[in-house]
Amino acid sequence: MNPLTSKSIPALARYSRRSLVDVCLEEAQKSQSVFTRLYAGAALAAGDHADAMRAAGVEVSPLAGLPVSIKDLIDVAGETTLAGSTVLRGAPIAKSDAPVVKRLRIAGAAIVGKTNMTEFAFSGVGLNPHYGTPANPAASDVARIPGGSSSGAAVSVATGLCVAAIGSDTGGSIRIPAALCGIVGFKPTARRVPTAGTIPLSTTLDTICAMARSVDDCILVDGIIADNELAIPELPLAGVRLAVPSTVALDALEPHVAASFSAALTRLSAAGAKIVDAPFALLAEAAALNKFSGAESFAWHRDLLASSEAEYDARVAKRIRTGESMSAADYIDLHRKRRNWINRMEEALGPFDSLIMPTVPIVAPPIAELEASEDAFFKANGLLLRNPSTINLLDGCAVSLPCHEEGTLPVGLSVAGPAMADRKVLAVARAIEGALHPLRAQ
Amino acid sequence: MNPLTSKSIPALARYSRRSLVDVCLEEAQKSQSVFTRLYAGAALAAGDHADAMRAAGVEVSPLAGLPVSIKDLIDVAGETTLAGSTVLRGAPIAKSDAPVVKRLRIAGAAIVGKTNMTEFAFSGVGLNPHYGTPANPAASDVARIPGGSSSGAAVSVATGLCVAAIGSDTGGSIRIPAALCGIVGFKPTARRVPTAGTIPLSTTLDTICAMARSVDDCILVDGIIADNELAIPELPLAGVRLAVPSTVALDALEPHVAASFSAALTRLSAAGAKIVDAPFALLAEAAALNKFSGAESFAWHRDLLASSEAEYDARVAKRIRTGESMSAADYIDLHRKRRNWINRMEEALGPFDSLIMPTVPIVAPPIAELEASEDAFFKANGLLLRNPSTINLLDGCAVSLPCHEEGTLPVGLSVAGPAMADRKVLAVARAIEGALHPLRAQ
Repeated sequence: MNPLTSKSIPALARYSRRSLVDVCLEEAQKSQSVFTRLYAGAALAAGDHADAMRAAGVEVSPLAGLPVSIKDLIDVAGETTLAGSTVLRGAPIAKSDAPVVKRLRIAGAAIVGKTNMTEFAFSGVGLNPHYGTPANPAASDVARIPGGSSSGAAVSVATGLCVAAIGSDTGGSIRIPAALCGIVGFKPTARRVPTAGTIPLSTTLDTICAMARSVDDCILVDGIIADNELAIPELPLAGVRLAVPSTVALDALEPHVAASFSAALTRLSAAGAKIVDAPFALLAEAAALNKFSGAESFAWHRDLLASSEAEYDARVAKRIRTGESMSAADYIDLHRKRRNWINRMEEALGPFDSLIMPTVPIVAPPIAELEASEDAFFKANGLLLRNPSTINLLDGCAVSLPCHEEGTLPVGLSVAGPAMADRKVLAVARAIEGALHPLRAQ
Repeated sequence: MNPLTSKSIPALARYSRRSLVDVCLEEAQKSQSVFTRLYAGAALAAGDHADAMRAAGVEVSPLAGLPVSIKDLIDVAGETTLAGSTVLRGAPIAKSDAPVVKRLRIAGAAIVGKTNMTEFAFSGVGLNPHYGTPANPAASDVARIPGGSSSGAAVSVATGLCVAAIGSDTGGSIRIPAALCGIVGFKPTARRVPTAGTIPLSTTLDTICAMARSVDDCILVDGIIADNELAIPELPLAGVRLAVPSTVALDALEPHVAASFSAALTRLSAAGAKIVDAPFALLAEAAALNKFSGAESFAWHRDLLASSEAEYDARVAKRIRTGESMSAADYIDLHRKRRNWINRMEEALGPFDSLIMPTVPIVAPPIAELEASEDAFFKANGLLLRNPSTINLLDGCAVSLPCHEEGTLPVGLSVAGPAMADRKVLAVARAIEGALHPLRAQ
């Protein structure tokens, strides 16, 4: 049995790193559409080095020698970053590792490969016509979507290939697949982690971040990629004030999501948390303000679209083209309106420790349904992005952690806060994880 | 004789503040088109209070009780900020003082009035069809432009009404009138001084800053409005490396400007400065990149233009309309290209202590000539903005200080550096001032 499958990082202390990397690479070679590239030599070397240092009594990072995957929009020196596309195949190679990759290498992580993703990180669904769509490992009935855009990233963790997956989150691309695959995803405040050396979707909203199998594992990886280890206080749930927004965020919940979220709230109340239904009427304005990625991605893509639009996933090209007609004045206004909205949201958040809501209102739909119908695809995509994207608009931070009963389809619960509230949000998320999953969190 | 006319702030120590405010208000009432509003009661109260505190032995700011003017685009609580326009006459009043005004009041400055300006800060010329154009006090032959957009601000200092004038600089609006009127203007790195409570021209490039009659006076006022007093080291000129850019900045110099600048370089060389002719070929790219104010001001003005374009100065409306057709993608690209240009410029600046160049290539043209011909107006405006606007594009800082012989039309010499090089630029400017004006600088 693969020891990586169900354990969080501290539980792996007794295993040789080399053996864990070996298992990972073996499973990765058998996986379908999860990885777009493997770095066997470098990963094994990192595992061996971590073992040697540990044997010599050197204190190494808890991540040293452990398998970590990198989303295919982050530069690794010496190869072209494709971002799930084929259109970039002739583009120049990356001259150096992205800063987050450098930081992972300094920590000694075994970077095992690049993960598949929605082309250019567009959509929360995870379909990729070029490299295939990895199936959601939590679903046994039919092949369901993994969520996106960090699709391969989520599957690399949920199947036990990697202890953590580095990805990006512009409107939920870490939290959506984490929720649908039943793992933990943390989107920090964007400015905390450098985006240099990554292919942008929205320069205003992009956040480089990670998913893992526990809140503590997310905290560990965040400390490395942000080069700023946050000390997270132990926070007893008793008296913690959690706002459940009644505007938009609870609309159109599928029954399993509603029941799982409701059961989680009952358990959190029982643990002493104060659950407060709060209107947060401002959330009704979010969709109209969340228009940055169109123009920002069109600015990046327009030359490529002009020369090679046929090589794009048509669903992706269509979304990029939405930014073509925006005027500079409208874009400038959008920034001003966003700042104003953030100010009002931060005021509304003042009385609470965190905002909690279902990460997404649906469970993972079958892949075939969304491939068959453009309407079904865009409808599901809208539902998946709806809640998490409000936190990017807020310039905030959020954790998605599982809140479903074992054996059912995964449901994510989001714990969110405003910009630079990362410590508080992580502390609340860890306390909630402890209340919902007393065994898993240990 | 008005003691304010020719002395810098330290030389005013022996005068009662009340008497100086009295003189200022008396002269201000006689002046033409310099002030748009006077605050006699508040200014006299500030003068009296500074005298009383000094008499009681309290240490007050060197600016306490001294007359200071405020450009008409900066909020003063209780009145509508007009920015040299008539179109805003029905707009809401400012609810509070802009942060820079608050800081001046804390320092005890006698804020004597609001100064006239180019409508909405557009143009470096200084014409205003609504409130008249103040004549350049340094010219005795014909009525010449004061420069703009901080036209009244420069005249309020050059005529001895005020010891300092607060204005804004988006492409040279402090440095151009300082150069044409023969005083000192300092544009700090934009982020150092809050722009809140001011009417924007370009949110990317706007800088709130001041002019005065010596570099030291500019340092004093900068410390107050930035709420961050910089300690400026004494810097001997011997060995200081000054780059004179040979691209664009020396083009089309009028003979008096060329001769004055050249004579100044000879004196600086004699004082031991190393004058280095450097290509700075990147300056040839600046004009094409300096397109922020069009779209940014159109975003601010479009509703007003739609309802009331006829009330605008046609020259101003025409310039604002240049931003109407820019696309969001082009605007986003412009930011990216600017960052890239700044990186390359900063690399080119690396070997030097400062960049020096004529602030503007011409002396102040006659008002009548520019009022008579739109071609002459736009040509002069382009020449006036050409050199100083490159420093806004650089996100840099610069001092303009006089380099002409007494009795001739003023010529400004600019000392410039990159973002956050304010200390170095001020130190170099003070050393240059000492070499060029050994008496004035004392």
